[in-house]
Amino acid sequence: MAHHDTKFEGWVAMDKSAAEGNMVWQAYDPKPWEETDIDIEITHCGVCGTDLHQLRSGWGQTAYPVVVGHELVGITVRVGKEAAKTGVKLGDRVGVGAQNDACQCRKPPQTLKDHSDCNACSTGNEVYCPNMTLTYGAKYLTSAGGKSMGGYARYHRCPAAFAFKIPDNLASEHAAPMMCAGLTAFSPLVHFGSHYNQRPTSEKLKGLLVGVIGIGGVGHFAVLFAKALGAQRVVAFSRHADKRDDALALGADTYIATAEDRNWEVENAGSLDLILCTISSSNMPLTDYITLLKRDGSFCQLGLPDDGQFNVDAAAIASQRRSLTGSFMGSPNEIREMLQLAADKAIKPRVEVYPMSEANSVLKKMELGKAKYRYVMVNH
Amino acid sequence: MAHHDTKFEGWVAMDKSAAEGNMVWQAYDPKPWEETDIDIEITHCGVCGTDLHQLRSGWGQTAYPVVVGHELVGITVRVGKEAAKTGVKLGDRVGVGAQNDACQCRKPPQTLKDHSDCNACSTGNEVYCPNMTLTYGAKYLTSAGGKSMGGYARYHRCPAAFAFKIPDNLASEHAAPMMCAGLTAFSPLVHFGSHYNQRPTSEKLKGLLVGVIGIGGVGHFAVLFAKALGAQRVVAFSRHADKRDDALALGADTYIATAEDRNWEVENAGSLDLILCTISSSNMPLTDYITLLKRDGSFCQLGLPDDGQFNVDAAAIASQRRSLTGSFMGSPNEIREMLQLAADKAIKPRVEVYPMSEANSVLKKMELGKAKYRYVMVNH
Repeated sequence: MAHHDTKFEGWVAMDKSAAEGNMVWQAYDPKPWEETDIDIEITHCGVCGTDLHQLRSGWGQTAYPVVVGHELVGITVRVGKEAAKTGVKLGDRVGVGAQNDACQCRKPPQTLKDHSDCNACSTGNEVYCPNMTLTYGAKYLTSAGGKSMGGYARYHRCPAAFAFKIPDNLASEHAAPMMCAGLTAFSPLVHFGSHYNQRPTSEKLKGLLVGVIGIGGVGHFAVLFAKALGAQRVVAFSRHADKRDDALALGADTYIATAEDRNWEVENAGSLDLILCTISSSNMPLTDYITLLKRDGSFCQLGLPDDGQFNVDAAAIASQRRSLTGSFMGSPNEIREMLQLAADKAIKPRVEVYPMSEANSVLKKMELGKAKYRYVMVNH
Repeated sequence: MAHHDTKFEGWVAMDKSAAEGNMVWQAYDPKPWEETDIDIEITHCGVCGTDLHQLRSGWGQTAYPVVVGHELVGITVRVGKEAAKTGVKLGDRVGVGAQNDACQCRKPPQTLKDHSDCNACSTGNEVYCPNMTLTYGAKYLTSAGGKSMGGYARYHRCPAAFAFKIPDNLASEHAAPMMCAGLTAFSPLVHFGSHYNQRPTSEKLKGLLVGVIGIGGVGHFAVLFAKALGAQRVVAFSRHADKRDDALALGADTYIATAEDRNWEVENAGSLDLILCTISSSNMPLTDYITLLKRDGSFCQLGLPDDGQFNVDAAAIASQRRSLTGSFMGSPNEIREMLQLAADKAIKPRVEVYPMSEANSVLKKMELGKAKYRYVMVNH
């Protein structure tokens, strides 16, 4: 395959001050090339709350120097011999999300250790692989090693197994934020919907009443996808009324402003099959939310509460056999399903587009929580 | 049908001192007779921790005077005209558990209100009916009304729909404690097993690894039934080693003494599909227990923690899409399945039998937590 003259440069974070808008555009070393890899010329990259959190070492020390960004879309400019066997071709438009690799049950010499017993990878749950590699700031499992570098950059190098062809009629600026925010909503909708029926994806939520708590990057995708998956009714919850019009326009059937409407927890008790909670405040009225579920309903937390704890009335759960659960991103088969559904149903997330050159100022806007509902940066 | 000369008398609790062994043997009024009812001459009644708790008004004021006991077996001595349509006959040996009635989607004039929209009853989940009637100290929904009176007595009157024929080869002393303790374990094993496969009941847990926390009345049934339902492996957990031999004899494959063994939470992390927790202390290491689950595993709490709260590390749940859930007794279709399985597999719970006349002293023994693993009282 042709070897495009790639110069890896991007917005490098040298320390935690990067989160304040101090990333530096410069060259960096990508992971060592392996024949299972592809190089992607990045055209678009979404801005995720995780980027900010990692830039400031919010979950333990981040491996600086690092380039963040894990909602990237671009064109393949180099395809390894092994990578080609996955079907990816030079010039393909592909997306990469927050996962860059998993053990994939590989054995030495492909990896340092034998992973042939990995239940997660063998069952199509690669995102739960205990040895998965995140898209930035993480080490690769393969013998070649190296550190992952994300999408606020000109190029991205990654294993082809974690790059996904974007259907032709899905715009890159719409596909990019699906790779993390979209997937985080899509995966639990399909997964928990499967407890109710074995219908095809587009009818996975048929007949179900779905709640979405928090209308932000992930929450707005949850409304879009819940409708696209056939939910009978989608109820959107946010603290204030200011997102009502947007939520209804995205497809929500009802909107509840939890800090303004009265008695919503009583009037809507026992009404929902599945709730996705996209907010991470431990101050949320978790017991009230769980009481909104029908018997056997599931409350699915996406992201962790501030203090890392769930505190909830046990009777609200046990008395109606409800479940408190959670979900983490999604796996390759779900990414493919999501992109196809989004193309088939012409799903259009709400994005604001900025030039990649403005990454530092986009970060500052993101910090203020003003995104409606996702920022996407574009390389020109 | 013949009308047996029933004199309703039993151990009546007049106030909360009854829990200290001050129940009084005397006559009382059963519910008003309806043609949907049967009268049962009680031969056996198990002693449940709930009896003690209710006697002392542990969950709010109990409706004294009351007769407790909700694990009863006996012989039908009167069968109403409507009751006969359920197939029950005079002289049948039947069991009654902790639920005495549900709305069953009935409309007036059978009940005071229209219940035709009850989702629980219409789907065979009668135990979750919001208008269910407990077997003692509760009001009936029917126009005739009346208060439920339990099994520490000579006779029991109840709607035939909540009395279940005991298979011939199942001893009454074994069937009695199944009606509450057994069912509380059986129902979630079958229900959550159904998330994994659609095999027949006796193979519902095939291939699954099941944990049982707390080896007492409910816990020892959980071990027995998990094995009978085909679990690949049952791991029993109790604080100390003193129940090891019993647990292994009941069928557990492994026993962990959580207060004595070391490092069990690390060595067994990610190893179980389903955990039933039969203890109610909020001091239990809930996060450690949940970490024992595999990806997508369920931790099912039976009974409520002391303080009514679950406090648990959110990452332990969300990072592997685990669920924290609970279960409450079981429904009629599960009772029938349980009794048949117990008969087919010759399941023998461990019971200690006492005369009904010693009910007050049996209560005192129960309070000391010495039951191994269930007391059953017999009318002579």
